[in-house]
Amino acid sequence: MNILIKNASVLTMDENAEIMEKASIAIENGKIKSIGMVEEDFKADKIIDGTNKLAMPGLVNSHTHIAMSLFRNYADDLPFWTWLFDRIIPSEENLIPEHVYWGSMLSIAEMIKFGVTSFADMYFFMDEVAKATAETGIRASLAIGITDSGDQQAKIKNTKEFYDNWHGKADGRITVMAGPHAPYSCNPEFLTKVIDMATEKRMGIHIHLSESKKEIEDSYNLRGKSPVKHVNDLGLFEVPTLAAHCVHLSDEDIEILAEKKVSIANNPGSNLKLGNGFARVEDMLKRGINVGLGTDGSASNNNLNMFEEINLAALINKGYTGVATSIPADVAVRMATLNGAKALGIDREVGTLEVGKKADIIMLDLNKPHFYPRYNLVASLAYSAQASDVETVIVDGKVLMENYELKTIDLEKVMFNAERCAKSLIKK
Amino acid sequence: MNILIKNASVLTMDENAEIMEKASIAIENGKIKSIGMVEEDFKADKIIDGTNKLAMPGLVNSHTHIAMSLFRNYADDLPFWTWLFDRIIPSEENLIPEHVYWGSMLSIAEMIKFGVTSFADMYFFMDEVAKATAETGIRASLAIGITDSGDQQAKIKNTKEFYDNWHGKADGRITVMAGPHAPYSCNPEFLTKVIDMATEKRMGIHIHLSESKKEIEDSYNLRGKSPVKHVNDLGLFEVPTLAAHCVHLSDEDIEILAEKKVSIANNPGSNLKLGNGFARVEDMLKRGINVGLGTDGSASNNNLNMFEEINLAALINKGYTGVATSIPADVAVRMATLNGAKALGIDREVGTLEVGKKADIIMLDLNKPHFYPRYNLVASLAYSAQASDVETVIVDGKVLMENYELKTIDLEKVMFNAERCAKSLIKK
Repeated sequence: MNILIKNASVLTMDENAEIMEKASIAIENGKIKSIGMVEEDFKADKIIDGTNKLAMPGLVNSHTHIAMSLFRNYADDLPFWTWLFDRIIPSEENLIPEHVYWGSMLSIAEMIKFGVTSFADMYFFMDEVAKATAETGIRASLAIGITDSGDQQAKIKNTKEFYDNWHGKADGRITVMAGPHAPYSCNPEFLTKVIDMATEKRMGIHIHLSESKKEIEDSYNLRGKSPVKHVNDLGLFEVPTLAAHCVHLSDEDIEILAEKKVSIANNPGSNLKLGNGFARVEDMLKRGINVGLGTDGSASNNNLNMFEEINLAALINKGYTGVATSIPADVAVRMATLNGAKALGIDREVGTLEVGKKADIIMLDLNKPHFYPRYNLVASLAYSAQASDVETVIVDGKVLMENYELKTIDLEKVMFNAERCAKSLIKK
Repeated sequence: MNILIKNASVLTMDENAEIMEKASIAIENGKIKSIGMVEEDFKADKIIDGTNKLAMPGLVNSHTHIAMSLFRNYADDLPFWTWLFDRIIPSEENLIPEHVYWGSMLSIAEMIKFGVTSFADMYFFMDEVAKATAETGIRASLAIGITDSGDQQAKIKNTKEFYDNWHGKADGRITVMAGPHAPYSCNPEFLTKVIDMATEKRMGIHIHLSESKKEIEDSYNLRGKSPVKHVNDLGLFEVPTLAAHCVHLSDEDIEILAEKKVSIANNPGSNLKLGNGFARVEDMLKRGINVGLGTDGSASNNNLNMFEEINLAALINKGYTGVATSIPADVAVRMATLNGAKALGIDREVGTLEVGKKADIIMLDLNKPHFYPRYNLVASLAYSAQASDVETVIVDGKVLMENYELKTIDLEKVMFNAERCAKSLIKK
């Protein structure tokens, strides 16, 4: 279907993050055909009026566990290790594939409503997440989360099969990474096997890294070096890597991550909520590291609102460094769009609005008091906008939400089933 | 008008922050007549269905400058002193009463939409803010912001007249405080005059205090003591005081604030955005100080979304202290309700839902993906909820918004006029 967006304010997220006023976007075969003026002979099957709306690249959630929405508001105001090992992991042992499917559907509904068009996920029963992704029309980089416990060979085999079954599927909307959970849950021998497998299959790796102070202390006690140095010594960064968190980094860690071109998923909301602290985002960006933004799972956030992460990134780094110019609005928005796309390895396809790229576009309704007066829309996005301002979402040239209404999801059915699954999952 | 809310989840914000399920609230003559079960003979003129909705006390924005919405997204990513003295104050010199009126109307529209039912304001042309408050039906504590420059006697006189004209007006929804801007903009002689006037008139004082590091350094250089100690030595805290910010406090400052029962308006969003840092909220609460939450003006936030401030309070204090149990969800919500009401001196009337108190009630629509599953609604409010979930707002027993529609404000007219005023105010 050919779509024409007319008369919108358009933020392409080019280098200058400039706004084009009264601009059009033509979409053909899922791709952006033109931006600004549109050829007179473009035949649109559907015209979307962009008056008093902002069109921009869909947001990229670069680290999450979407099925964990089933644990939303279940274990809060707890320290990271208590939360993870006493509350979350024991509950996760009750998970069956159906839970993961409905938890995923709930989260995809929430993400589309909040303007997220791509996400990077790591969890169990990932076939269910892939099915939900394929059905709903969103874009995702998926990884089976694996640890060294149990049958390691079977886990490696599962990841290979998952890759063969899903990589490039759903019109290319699904890509697959390997998902070794973390250096503290994967011993060096197992990590090496995963690295070899990823190298052989030409897969990226999505891993948790340097999230809590305890992880760093344990790593020094066990190996005399930081988690970053440890996995680098194992050769992990020879594979394209998406490292989630990276809260506690030494200067040497930052050098390693920069040299090895590792992408970071910064998760400010989750890191604060679990008491893990503030990542050195300003230092990483200065050193040229690609830093995206993620929500982490809804069990530690407790939503999948990337506008909140943009706002947090723009605010807390100023507080943390004491420098009010740290992470200005355009940088925070770029972290949630182009940098995220780079982290997922899909920046040649999405992350900016450019002719030839896939049409992953969101539109915000600006006809609300918090968007007046109209000085600087990029600043608005970081400091004033609400995720609930997103009223239209297009992924791969298909309309997934229009006028706030989801087009590919039966929301009442999804909320009902998510509640039902959660009730059977957690025995009170 | 008698109103009956039926079948709602009700958070009264009692000491345990417990949720009552399938509860009713009866409202008569602007006051709460009953909560839970309702007497059979209660005659309602209007029934509001509370199914899958949460009713709770309206939020209290305990420090703002609502007319500054005209400078929203006008001066961002700048250090505090550049922002204030190079951008904001020079623009404020162009202000005329009409600007303040439309800026106030814009902000009141935004606040009602976002669930704020009371606010504490300090600015110029406060008659316009009072008029907007009276017209729209919101509740406010208003103060003319004054400094030592110019005719000091006239300023004192203006504040007295403003008190006489507006204190207790609009069915008691408006209260008035004295508003000496800050110790760095009011010299000791002038502050003393204001304190004497406030004592004579039995007014409270609303003041900016210890906001930036520079303010503290300047105070030590000039007087050899902190701003808190300085104003305490002048006798300011003998008057009931609402001190905004208090970011940089010594242990001695905290002792003084506790002993003198000063209320603090903590403004996490503004403090981060201007690079002023993190207030010692946990330490203040432990010492028994009443700490409310505020947005500050939209020029340094850039919206009036108290749900964002609740979320920030619950998140950043965990990151700042490294303790994931710091400022749990119920404490953050209490800061934005009862503590705010105490700070404004109106906690006998509002701040909790209690029989006999004024009916300042907001209702959130829970039929949204980010409210599923349903484990803990108080955690939801701090970590998942969106200001845009507020669908009904009642102040003083009158419905100001229903089904997301403002009942006392012509929103299109207000946005049009706010944009027009901003254009004439800032010469580009």
